[in-house]
Amino acid sequence: MDIKKRIEKLAELKSGLYKKDFLLTWEKSETDLKIILEVATLLKELREKNVSCRLFDSGLAISNFRDNSTRTRFSFASASNLLGLAVQDLDEEKSQISHGETVRETANMISFLSDFIGIRDDMFLGEGNKYMREVADSLDEGFKEGVLPVRPGIVNLQCDMDHPTQSMADLLHLQNEFGSLKNLKGKKIVMSWAYSPSYGKPLSVPQGIIALMSRFGMNIELAYPEGYGLIPEIVDIAKANAKKSGGSFNISHNMKDAMKDADIVYPKSWAPFHIMQQRTELLMAKDKNGLQELEKVCLTNNAKHKDWEYNQDKMNVTKGKNALYMHCLPADISAVSCKEGEVNADVFEKYRIKTYIEAGYKPYIIGAMMLTNRFKKPAEVIDGLLKQNKKRVTQ
Amino acid sequence: MDIKKRIEKLAELKSGLYKKDFLLTWEKSETDLKIILEVATLLKELREKNVSCRLFDSGLAISNFRDNSTRTRFSFASASNLLGLAVQDLDEEKSQISHGETVRETANMISFLSDFIGIRDDMFLGEGNKYMREVADSLDEGFKEGVLPVRPGIVNLQCDMDHPTQSMADLLHLQNEFGSLKNLKGKKIVMSWAYSPSYGKPLSVPQGIIALMSRFGMNIELAYPEGYGLIPEIVDIAKANAKKSGGSFNISHNMKDAMKDADIVYPKSWAPFHIMQQRTELLMAKDKNGLQELEKVCLTNNAKHKDWEYNQDKMNVTKGKNALYMHCLPADISAVSCKEGEVNADVFEKYRIKTYIEAGYKPYIIGAMMLTNRFKKPAEVIDGLLKQNKKRVTQ
Amino acid sequence: MDIKKRIEKLAELKSGLYKKDFLLTWEKSETDLKIILEVATLLKELREKNVSCRLFDSGLAISNFRDNSTRTRFSFASASNLLGLAVQDLDEEKSQISHGETVRETANMISFLSDFIGIRDDMFLGEGNKYMREVADSLDEGFKEGVLPVRPGIVNLQCDMDHPTQSMADLLHLQNEFGSLKNLKGKKIVMSWAYSPSYGKPLSVPQGIIALMSRFGMNIELAYPEGYGLIPEIVDIAKANAKKSGGSFNISHNMKDAMKDADIVYPKSWAPFHIMQQRTELLMAKDKNGLQELEKVCLTNNAKHKDWEYNQDKMNVTKGKNALYMHCLPADISAVSCKEGEVNADVFEKYRIKTYIEAGYKPYIIGAMMLTNRFKKPAEVIDGLLKQNKKRVTQ
Repeated sequence: MDIKKRIEKLAELKSGLYKKDFLLTWEKSETDLKIILEVATLLKELREKNVSCRLFDSGLAISNFRDNSTRTRFSFASASNLLGLAVQDLDEEKSQISHGETVRETANMISFLSDFIGIRDDMFLGEGNKYMREVADSLDEGFKEGVLPVRPGIVNLQCDMDHPTQSMADLLHLQNEFGSLKNLKGKKIVMSWAYSPSYGKPLSVPQGIIALMSRFGMNIELAYPEGYGLIPEIVDIAKANAKKSGGSFNISHNMKDAMKDADIVYPKSWAPFHIMQQRTELLMAKDKNGLQELEKVCLTNNAKHKDWEYNQDKMNVTKGKNALYMHCLPADISAVSCKEGEVNADVFEKYRIKTYIEAGYKPYIIGAMMLTNRFKKPAEVIDGLLKQNKKRVTQ
Repeated sequence: MDIKKRIEKLAELKSGLYKKDFLLTWEKSETDLKIILEVATLLKELREKNVSCRLFDSGLAISNFRDNSTRTRFSFASASNLLGLAVQDLDEEKSQISHGETVRETANMISFLSDFIGIRDDMFLGEGNKYMREVADSLDEGFKEGVLPVRPGIVNLQCDMDHPTQSMADLLHLQNEFGSLKNLKGKKIVMSWAYSPSYGKPLSVPQGIIALMSRFGMNIELAYPEGYGLIPEIVDIAKANAKKSGGSFNISHNMKDAMKDADIVYPKSWAPFHIMQQRTELLMAKDKNGLQELEKVCLTNNAKHKDWEYNQDKMNVTKGKNALYMHCLPADISAVSCKEGEVNADVFEKYRIKTYIEAGYKPYIIGAMMLTNRFKKPAEVIDGLLKQNKKRVTQ
Repeated sequence: MDIKKRIEKLAELKSGLYKKDFLLTWEKSETDLKIILEVATLLKELREKNVSCRLFDSGLAISNFRDNSTRTRFSFASASNLLGLAVQDLDEEKSQISHGETVRETANMISFLSDFIGIRDDMFLGEGNKYMREVADSLDEGFKEGVLPVRPGIVNLQCDMDHPTQSMADLLHLQNEFGSLKNLKGKKIVMSWAYSPSYGKPLSVPQGIIALMSRFGMNIELAYPEGYGLIPEIVDIAKANAKKSGGSFNISHNMKDAMKDADIVYPKSWAPFHIMQQRTELLMAKDKNGLQELEKVCLTNNAKHKDWEYNQDKMNVTKGKNALYMHCLPADISAVSCKEGEVNADVFEKYRIKTYIEAGYKPYIIGAMMLTNRFKKPAEVIDGLLKQNKKRVTQ
């Protein structure tokens, strides 16, 4: 679509994102989700046309990674830099937080000249999203009380419940692969558990996928070995979404059966909900022996499901034997990154470049979340950038 | 005050800060301290008015934290970013400094395109400030010999003697709380030791406070249990300052008595001077057993003074039962961040937001130290920013 | 030389550097090497004249240090900042790379909005340069397949074979010390092994020096104790270069004899090639005992050559008793950074400032490698900066 037309279309959507944190996709309206997709697409286009997207002359974007990250760390850094912000890491080991500082206090201390805080906190069930809201409340208070000149926006870079920058990048990928959001209606997407030789992988990706894709009339198939369920409340959200959007939602326990006639497959390992609960308790109690014991049990359990590998045999039952394969990366690729894993090497290779393209939307999704948090009328802002036409790289 | 008038007033003060490192407040004239306060205030105002304060189109600000930090790290990053500089951390563990590189050499190696170096070195008595001066001398040589195109300015981000970015932020807080520096004349400020379950806290904050506040005609009460003295030479400086400025200086050993009629209280734990001396020797000798032994003795000693908690009982004897409570944060809050600590939770809560506001001046104080180091006529520079009126965030 | 004239001269050289990674100096033509020297000189001059060199309004420069670094880390950060890019570290410990992610994947994941990747990988013989090429191939694929909007340029920040940012900075130093590249013709440079109390130092500096300096008609003397040879293929390259450029190449095993009539000396420790091979195997096998055993053997061997210290006695046989002393720093200085080392303290002191000046070219060499990778006609680009005349620091 022509960029001018795209901006005009965007201008018709009324944003509810202004001054709101982006914590869970299911707290956002369909319109708001569409705005994010459109703004991300426009930012990507502007950058590819060498048009500067700097809206900030200075300012900090704080990243608080409480778990490892490559993709999301670089996506956050890229988005911040794109808009003109400098990234400052809150490295809790190098800080005085171990001194017994409260979240409330830290949130303010890092925010005097900050515009955004990106948080990843996905290790503890029941904790990550709660922590983000605690930070949010603290920032609200700090802003209200005149401590902070600006209320920094929060972007959820993965929590125990959702991974919205991932699922929105995935949605943008689907929109581009199938031509439009409308075209997703009636498509079958299989969010499937897959075998991995590691344990304790977060639930946020599968939860994020079923809760988001169910809003666009898709037929969601959630497949996992018995006992590998997700957080029940989020499954309920997905069910309700599917009903409302005219799609469907089904749970099954056989990978191959689930794949039948799938348009899209997302095979990915995760730890069972009840195991994550136990793990959270043990982690909080710093019970090392308990954790080792749990890991042993889990790995033994996982090993019973090595047949949950996405391979040619399963691909063959999908629509046209060629369902779109998706993954948040890095995938556990059999015989490449591990002996036996989530996906067969040949199958992965066939879709590898597409998974890279999928990942490449994330910086722009984060940029869109920032832009819409800070500017009431995103279409006007982007039109302004286009008209200003400052070059990102000298020509 | 109107911003124009403020700039005019500032223009009347003749700066002695140009091309001078900021290492100790007692090396600076009262006029220079006032200039720092004024420039900090103006930078804060400009930023709140969305006026860009970028004076540097590019350039590095090096941070060298030899001890943990959150507040000061973010304050330094914020100030650097505000003025247009990118922060580069000198992480001594990731460098080749362990190779046996000299300070003289490192100082030059990191400075080829640097404009400022911020240093925190507060662990060893007799070492931190000395290290900063060694860096300073090396930079002088490098600049003189044509190695460096610019002599980077040094900002003391806390040493064994002083914590000038903290004490100056505290002074700006007091100026704003009491309306003017003049109004501080005759006010009683109690810098008091307080109980903490940790040991080995630096002396730089209490030393910085008594040495700075004594210059503005305040009545300084330094209170601590017998044996918890500060570096004698700095106490002498505070005494002399008080005499010169028409204030007073008194040392006492009973927390509640000390608080009587106080206008301002600053209850904060520190390690006794003579313990810090022993600790320095043990640290340098890498004597782990000795350090453990010392810690045990210290904690036992500290535990004898758990009544040195700032609480309602002590508050009740202060001026109007409502002295301004100050702290550099994070405070050891009883029943919040530790079982028994420096301050009662209810009392802290009453002043919590004010301590956040106090902390919020630090980025601007650092920015002012940088600006005045680099520009001879700060008033003209700020007036230039105001007239240029470039927006920090697109509107 | 006048800056205008310098730019005109540069315009006469036809660059082959555009869109090419800088991995090994011996892959580049003499013209290209001259272009790097000229662009570096011009960037240095522009910056010293307070002219902004920002060519990028935003964009990331990724640093991937697989070994410690101070000088090169700061040089890369400085160069990136000079051109307008923000540095983002790829810290492999904080990433998900340990998850078993492929190089191919990581290379793309960090590059969605990146303009350059600087890599140091010098620990394993046969690995570092190979790794860089693997990254390069991955970026080529990503760019070709539409994953990346820009193909980020790679700068070799030291590998197992070459250390081109160092050797090119050294060459620029020589050009300035001797007046021109032409004047280097016929000059004798001694790249000599020297004793160090540590072991396992990379071969990349001596290899880089002999392979580069041999291209300008210099007489290369490579001196080391028997058994301390370099990678034979690179020695062959240096020999062939010398022949072609009208210089000479000689290997000898007595430090003092080698120094006779030297114009330039570069005494520096390194580990023997065959030891590095063994070490690589042991490191890869994670054989701790084997590594300790090897270290012991090596240190014992090294200790037989403590007389390989550059001192007054050796200086006295050089041209005019005053050959230019060079070092990549940090040097192992006897009685300063170690008991017995590569160089006598008095001799080092005499040339210390010159070694700092030598090091100071590196940021500009890296800047020149970046600029020429991205812009086809460097002279035009630099002329554009000069004409634009935007100030780096407000005046």
